[in-house]
Amino acid sequence: MSRSFSDWATWHQMEIFDASKSAWREGEKALIARACRQFGACVPPSPFGPGDDCALLGRGAFLQNVFATSDAVIFGRHFDADAPPRRVGEKLVKRNASDIAAMGAAPKFALLCAICSKDVSADWLDEFCRGAGQCADRLGIKIVGGDMASVPERFFSAHMTLLGDSDFPALLREGARAGDKICVTGALGFSRESGRHLDFEPRIAEGGFLARRSCALSRGAEGASACTDISDGVAADLKNLLSPETCALLYSERIPRAEFGGLRASLERALCDGEDYELLFAWRGEFGPLEREWRGNFECEICEMGKIFDASEFARRFGIPDARQCAREIFVSENGRPPARFSRGGFSH
Amino acid sequence: MSRSFSDWATWHQMEIFDASKSAWREGEKALIARACRQFGACVPPSPFGPGDDCALLGRGAFLQNVFATSDAVIFGRHFDADAPPRRVGEKLVKRNASDIAAMGAAPKFALLCAICSKDVSADWLDEFCRGAGQCADRLGIKIVGGDMASVPERFFSAHMTLLGDSDFPALLREGARAGDKICVTGALGFSRESGRHLDFEPRIAEGGFLARRSCALSRGAEGASACTDISDGVAADLKNLLSPETCALLYSERIPRAEFGGLRASLERALCDGEDYELLFAWRGEFGPLEREWRGNFECEICEMGKIFDASEFARRFGIPDARQCAREIFVSENGRPPARFSRGGFSH
Repeated sequence: MSRSFSDWATWHQMEIFDASKSAWREGEKALIARACRQFGACVPPSPFGPGDDCALLGRGAFLQNVFATSDAVIFGRHFDADAPPRRVGEKLVKRNASDIAAMGAAPKFALLCAICSKDVSADWLDEFCRGAGQCADRLGIKIVGGDMASVPERFFSAHMTLLGDSDFPALLREGARAGDKICVTGALGFSRESGRHLDFEPRIAEGGFLARRSCALSRGAEGASACTDISDGVAADLKNLLSPETCALLYSERIPRAEFGGLRASLERALCDGEDYELLFAWRGEFGPLEREWRGNFECEICEMGKIFDASEFARRFGIPDARQCAREIFVSENGRPPARFSRGGFSH
Repeated sequence: MSRSFSDWATWHQMEIFDASKSAWREGEKALIARACRQFGACVPPSPFGPGDDCALLGRGAFLQNVFATSDAVIFGRHFDADAPPRRVGEKLVKRNASDIAAMGAAPKFALLCAICSKDVSADWLDEFCRGAGQCADRLGIKIVGGDMASVPERFFSAHMTLLGDSDFPALLREGARAGDKICVTGALGFSRESGRHLDFEPRIAEGGFLARRSCALSRGAEGASACTDISDGVAADLKNLLSPETCALLYSERIPRAEFGGLRASLERALCDGEDYELLFAWRGEFGPLEREWRGNFECEICEMGKIFDASEFARRFGIPDARQCAREIFVSENGRPPARFSRGGFSH
């Protein structure tokens, strides 16, 4: 491939692989933020760009109220040689559908791009495709295009871009305020051991219900004020629902913990395992009536497990000297004891 | 990761990597066709599914007349360590934009998913992202989302899904008939040596013009009847404009051949190199008036290089015993000599 001299000069300082300058040095979040800075003016603010579960395409003649998201399954990272290929295909569709559901939309059209090494077995790929296709069909998704590329050996990845639409405005991560209740569907933790990271069901109808009920807020009625799906774990994903002025308090005994092999997930596992693909949302109003309406419509469990506080008020009430130490933090109260700050590493008392 | 017993039984016959059963055995086209068969009922027919330059999303309340396409740049396959990262980023955007242009639409929204090994240099990635971002901005594209995933070492791929829209019906690959002229923009061949596989300009305005003029066909006026962009080379891509009843005749001396380093591309190179990213289209009507209108609007060259024939009539006229040998084939006439069949391997007289 040819180069002009000026390209050469640029390239000369520009080795693609150089572990000492790793793009991942500061973690995934920093890498994505840095990439977006480099993309520059073409990146719109959230929810029209990166930052929520989907991007909302809201400014084109034919692209009104369209939701778009992309996610992958990569061998060695999202699944291993033990995973049944059919389930891997299903997982690809479902993890994207879960992002669409978290904004209250319905998934419609998908593009599937695979990078498939020359030694991937045709039988394995058949099963993978059958899993993806049947799952797409069941969820009302059309696979309309994509791409297949080859690399030499021992590599398989599949990216799906999924588009959805909704009759209601998008249910965003942003929007919760002090006093809103923190609610969650299903049960949390043990997603790997139990195989639920492959078996989960995206909460599409439930997300649609919450989006419909979030419209009611503008009329002063009760409704959902913010929502996301749980992929990294509550300890990480709940922070995305908090503004810099708020914090979250979870009541330990109310956190719905998954069971597997006769064991119940610990608090740590329930909040940090991730890949639950449940809906985590803020509800403005009474939980009782919501719960009754929910049970009339859906099979999955729903739980009120905490509350959003104004960070300054929270600091005053619990005698924390600096309110800034509370902002955007998650606290857990165990059996009525004073709340302790919780993060991925556990409690910091 | 856990499995039920029935999963285990399936899995046991299902190694992901097994070169003796390679999914690529019968080539890319067969692999994609096989994958689509496995996807099953969720795959719509072209142009609403795979098979054209983009998929047309034409059946949803909010997804009317939306065009979607996905393409990648993969290290070692679409670029190598010599390629300036900024140009690689530009290429990712432009090769997708070229697919949108080939259907006469305008690109609008993109999702960018990268798989980036831990040893990819942050400087390299910055340059890549700047190239993609600036190119997107210049072409009116918003990068609204995507994903960054890591793998251990020496790997970089980036997939883009690009959405576009149009005020006109899609300009499809299908639609040409006997008598239509075969036209092409720009010049063909030497795309690697000349660096044009990185430097090309997607023909967005030109595609829009052709889509507008294809509407005229239904009123009996002159216009474009089919279009694609040239990625695999004319020898392969022109076949996509032919129905089972037609064949193409190209006039050797009219084929626009690129020059590089004082050399002019041979016929073989012009038709087979690929990655030209020019528009290849069928025109129903006189070429003269089109050419004059084109020159008033666009800088890039346009060329009438051949004609579409009814395969049976072609066989009769040139004394070919079996018309089936002509169907969907490309013939080249050199300086008025009788046409010879041309394929990727060269002429077969």
